[in-house]
Amino acid sequence: MERTLVGKTVEKVGEKILLKGWANTVRDHGKITFIDLRDRTGVVQCVGTSLEKISQESVIEIVGEVAKRPEKLVNPKIETGGIEIQIESLKVLSPAAELPFDMGTEDLNLDLPILLDNRALTLRHKKQQAIFKVQATIIDAFRQALIKKDFVEFQAPSIISAIPEGGAEVFKVDYFDSQAYLSQSPQLYKSLLVGIFERVFSVNQIFRAEPSVTTRHLAEATSLDAEFGFIDSWKDVLEMEEYVIRYTFSEVEKKCMQELSLFDATLPKLTDQIPVLKLREAQKIIYKRTGRDVLNEKDLAPEDEREICKWALEEKGSDLVFISHFETKKKPFYVYPDPADPTYAFSVDLLGRGVEWSSGGQRLNDYQTILEHINEWGLEEKDVELYLQSFKYGVPPLGGFALGAERMTMHILGLKNIREASLFPRDMERIDLRLSR
Amino acid sequence: MERTLVGKTVEKVGEKILLKGWANTVRDHGKITFIDLRDRTGVVQCVGTSLEKISQESVIEIVGEVAKRPEKLVNPKIETGGIEIQIESLKVLSPAAELPFDMGTEDLNLDLPILLDNRALTLRHKKQQAIFKVQATIIDAFRQALIKKDFVEFQAPSIISAIPEGGAEVFKVDYFDSQAYLSQSPQLYKSLLVGIFERVFSVNQIFRAEPSVTTRHLAEATSLDAEFGFIDSWKDVLEMEEYVIRYTFSEVEKKCMQELSLFDATLPKLTDQIPVLKLREAQKIIYKRTGRDVLNEKDLAPEDEREICKWALEEKGSDLVFISHFETKKKPFYVYPDPADPTYAFSVDLLGRGVEWSSGGQRLNDYQTILEHINEWGLEEKDVELYLQSFKYGVPPLGGFALGAERMTMHILGLKNIREASLFPRDMERIDLRLSR
Repeated sequence: MERTLVGKTVEKVGEKILLKGWANTVRDHGKITFIDLRDRTGVVQCVGTSLEKISQESVIEIVGEVAKRPEKLVNPKIETGGIEIQIESLKVLSPAAELPFDMGTEDLNLDLPILLDNRALTLRHKKQQAIFKVQATIIDAFRQALIKKDFVEFQAPSIISAIPEGGAEVFKVDYFDSQAYLSQSPQLYKSLLVGIFERVFSVNQIFRAEPSVTTRHLAEATSLDAEFGFIDSWKDVLEMEEYVIRYTFSEVEKKCMQELSLFDATLPKLTDQIPVLKLREAQKIIYKRTGRDVLNEKDLAPEDEREICKWALEEKGSDLVFISHFETKKKPFYVYPDPADPTYAFSVDLLGRGVEWSSGGQRLNDYQTILEHINEWGLEEKDVELYLQSFKYGVPPLGGFALGAERMTMHILGLKNIREASLFPRDMERIDLRLSR
Repeated sequence: MERTLVGKTVEKVGEKILLKGWANTVRDHGKITFIDLRDRTGVVQCVGTSLEKISQESVIEIVGEVAKRPEKLVNPKIETGGIEIQIESLKVLSPAAELPFDMGTEDLNLDLPILLDNRALTLRHKKQQAIFKVQATIIDAFRQALIKKDFVEFQAPSIISAIPEGGAEVFKVDYFDSQAYLSQSPQLYKSLLVGIFERVFSVNQIFRAEPSVTTRHLAEATSLDAEFGFIDSWKDVLEMEEYVIRYTFSEVEKKCMQELSLFDATLPKLTDQIPVLKLREAQKIIYKRTGRDVLNEKDLAPEDEREICKWALEEKGSDLVFISHFETKKKPFYVYPDPADPTYAFSVDLLGRGVEWSSGGQRLNDYQTILEHINEWGLEEKDVELYLQSFKYGVPPLGGFALGAERMTMHILGLKNIREASLFPRDMERIDLRLSR
């Protein structure tokens, strides 16, 4: 008999079917046993008599008939709530050991370390699964949005030979007889590739040896990078990023409503256009609203990010807001100074629901100016040799942005810690399991 | 005026347009200058009089009128061969320095080290670009094929805490106060995720500290990994892999005919079904065909792989062939021994055009057997703790495969060295540029 997926059971009332999946819950009422069988498409209640004992999470096969439930036993909350499977035979394909905690509850309610120490088990919970289905949808939507705009996908390398910006927060790799590093960003690669393909994107792992444990940093994260040439102004970059964001939200809305509803989550609110504020404008607003004098700060502190997002929602009806014109000297060498006032640059962060989702902006494309910046920033030309090679031979005006996949997932679903949005989070204290055991 | 892409010029005969791109070639005939302008959609000939001198590869803007060429000047070889742009004005957006070699030829004809030392420039050549457009198509096709079959994409981590198989060919990472490694394969992660999502795939960087320089190994490569549960037999794995391969070929055929034709390349031949041979059967065939006695070897040497591919093409009309049933003890601990003769396992390589494209097969899913294998293989349980956690709580019969993106690209296009199929190849001697300079 061919396998029937749970999602198809409601179409098969009166038929005998074969189900395969996990025993999501097992309720033993003496002779009668209720088993909620879970597969990749959903959960369905199965009922049988005189069954062998099976443990929760065991992998099972059930042959049985699909029957309508009596009206008063219908569960309107789940898709298969109108039926049940009357078990004729049951086979255990792979038995589960006794669970360290109940997995059959609506919420897992485990402390984060316990959740992560038992990752291979806890990910089976439907809310944990939902996080990564949303994440997969975000990532595929990012790619498809850009493919529609003629962007070419590239594979960004992880091993790099030099860290032009110096960098305490870089992981070192023993590379044969040399020293190499793990890439913090594919920035230089994606920019140099604009000289070749005009428009490129990548989905890649980035690495930060962040020596502190926060709720918003990972040692290894997934970066969604895009870069493109022949822009007329830095505003083209915002426009492209906004297009990608809107496309992504609409895909998540189309494909993940069930997952969002598990978290009572709604997609971030957008109006006609994501508001854009210069850093100094944002600081003035924060000062007015809170009395905190941040007017000369070089960046927004976390509480400033939260405040300006509150402003954007209250005043503009938008959960997202672009902040532009950070100080040129606080940004990397490739940043494009605003000719109207070169103290500030065409660099742009996207904030969403209180935190930074992405950074981007226009980049320098004039070879001589790049050389001057490298000198002013105190860098070595040889550390960016391949990058310089591209610009030496002509690259159009360009810009781009990088979105953090985990951050987007976290803030769309309202998760409290970014580790919840990484399948296998790495931080100072953990690679899968805790390092100090 | 809005930019017109080269690909749209043929629809605009008689109109004045704005083009942006690179000066692919510049031919100066005294007062008259011919410029082939290249953008992401193609190349078109532009002609003007009394132009400023511009260097090859400079980024330019041209305003001009689209005119039909006289019949005898039509070039049927390129899409825009029936028209030319009569230049009214030309602006240099980003000038190119003098090139170290001519980039305007049909072929680049550079030695590999020169090609790679000048990667940011040489990638601009249309044949180099074509390689990576084909690669991007392969990778997206792999993903879309699996999404259609309910597979969930996951992000495989690169930093891992232990190398269960030991491993000389592993890169070490300084991880805060610990030692970590770069992943050689997401095998254990994708298998354990079958316990969660049933069907998963990833596109990820893998790392091998291969201490030799060959034409077919990279220190960092892109792996296309798939794994799924509830298989009835190891043959389900072959079937899924064959489906992915066919889907990928058909996408490349649909989207990359121009790119293939630049290399006079044709997609590998397939018949009704990719032939499957057991290792021992393959060895017998090789012995019969060549007289070389390889009957008791534990693996196929490179010349054996070439020979059996020749056989598959001559006798079965197929450029691809599966080889199964390698010796259990030569494979990793998770391999599934054939119950009919446990000396050999349900492990399967896919060979294409003389080399290995992928390896895969059925994996153990019974927890106790996995523990026994770990013991027999001399491994430490603590090094595979997260993996064991999944199987302890029930995982269905499973299998999967991993395809090498660069190898597929290389052998579809007939490239001689795998470095040509990597944008930024890393090997013992090179990370972008040569390490020993």
